[in-house]
Amino acid sequence: MSELRQAQLADALLRIAADRGLDRVSVREVASAAGVSIGAVQYYFSTKDEMLAFAFRQVVDRTRARVSRLEPGAGPRQTLAAVLRQLLPLDARRLAECRVYLAFAARATTSPTLAAIQNATLAAIHEELRQTLAALPAPPSGHPVLHPVRDARLLLALVDGLMFDAVTAPTALPPAIAAKTLDLYLERLLPGSH
Amino acid sequence: MSELRQAQLADALLRIAADRGLDRVSVREVASAAGVSIGAVQYYFSTKDEMLAFAFRQVVDRTRARVSRLEPGAGPRQTLAAVLRQLLPLDARRLAECRVYLAFAARATTSPTLAAIQNATLAAIHEELRQTLAALPAPPSGHPVLHPVRDARLLLALVDGLMFDAVTAPTALPPAIAAKTLDLYLERLLPGSH
Repeated sequence: MSELRQAQLADALLRIAADRGLDRVSVREVASAAGVSIGAVQYYFSTKDEMLAFAFRQVVDRTRARVSRLEPGAGPRQTLAAVLRQLLPLDARRLAECRVYLAFAARATTSPTLAAIQNATLAAIHEELRQTLAALPAPPSGHPVLHPVRDARLLLALVDGLMFDAVTAPTALPPAIAAKTLDLYLERLLPGSH
Repeated sequence: MSELRQAQLADALLRIAADRGLDRVSVREVASAAGVSIGAVQYYFSTKDEMLAFAFRQVVDRTRARVSRLEPGAGPRQTLAAVLRQLLPLDARRLAECRVYLAFAARATTSPTLAAIQNATLAAIHEELRQTLAALPAPPSGHPVLHPVRDARLLLALVDGLMFDAVTAPTALPPAIAAKTLDLYLERLLPGSH
């Protein structure tokens, strides 16, 4: 698929996810929103699962591209916070991405193909977080020791949970509060760091 | 709705959620799985959203019933761990409940009715966690101070995130590891407690 065509289709899917969800979306709608033919859409994904897998991969790629463009923060804690904020619904674009992720993940519970993608994606993020945590200086004495493997799991679950709560219950957890909650966690995890 | 009928329909929805998801379920299938007439199903929920709201409320009620039957643990930390484990997919029943929760929550992103239920449910759980944390003795000196409001948010997000990761990516986060990850978090949050 050409990159331009991929971007057109991904933009259309993100707009539909933002407006009314990917739940009952039809091939016709995606084609119309992307300004391409129905045949072109069917050429790229012939089933709903393939469409969700495509949309999710695009979200992952876009998130990774944003992360790679981030300026380093004042210290490891601020850098980590800036990276993880890319996964929270802090603006319209990220909210649409989170909705794609939720629709994809909910479907992964009963689709082995989607489950394999979700398992590989979380394993990759876990490994990157583990490496980041393993490279940090030891915490000041008297503070809990970091366990890179387990702390990467905790951090990944926390960010997924903040995303989940802020997207599905934004009155109970406004996205800005989700970001502050993440900051509180990182301050305790990396005391003395910036 | 009679309690017996409610239980029949809820059991049927949980079985379908476990087997193949609630994504494309029809009224006919629910009726057949519950052993009731199509008319009876339509009487109780006329839309897919009403069906998901019903299934989610049943999951919340059943989880609360299990929590109320728990024996107190050796101390506040073990009691809290036992309560929060009711929300993780640690057996077939809880896995089915989690799948209902995910299907419901994913749909809540685009249904104001479901979003209102999800907001109220998370706000209620947050308030209960806040009260539990506020009633705990102060941590030993040198340990981080508990902030009941913020720590209740953190704990709720962490449990939702562990649930989300373990249900959608059980290879990357096996449910038993999710439970151990929760224990690690609670040991740090409540040092010196049992």
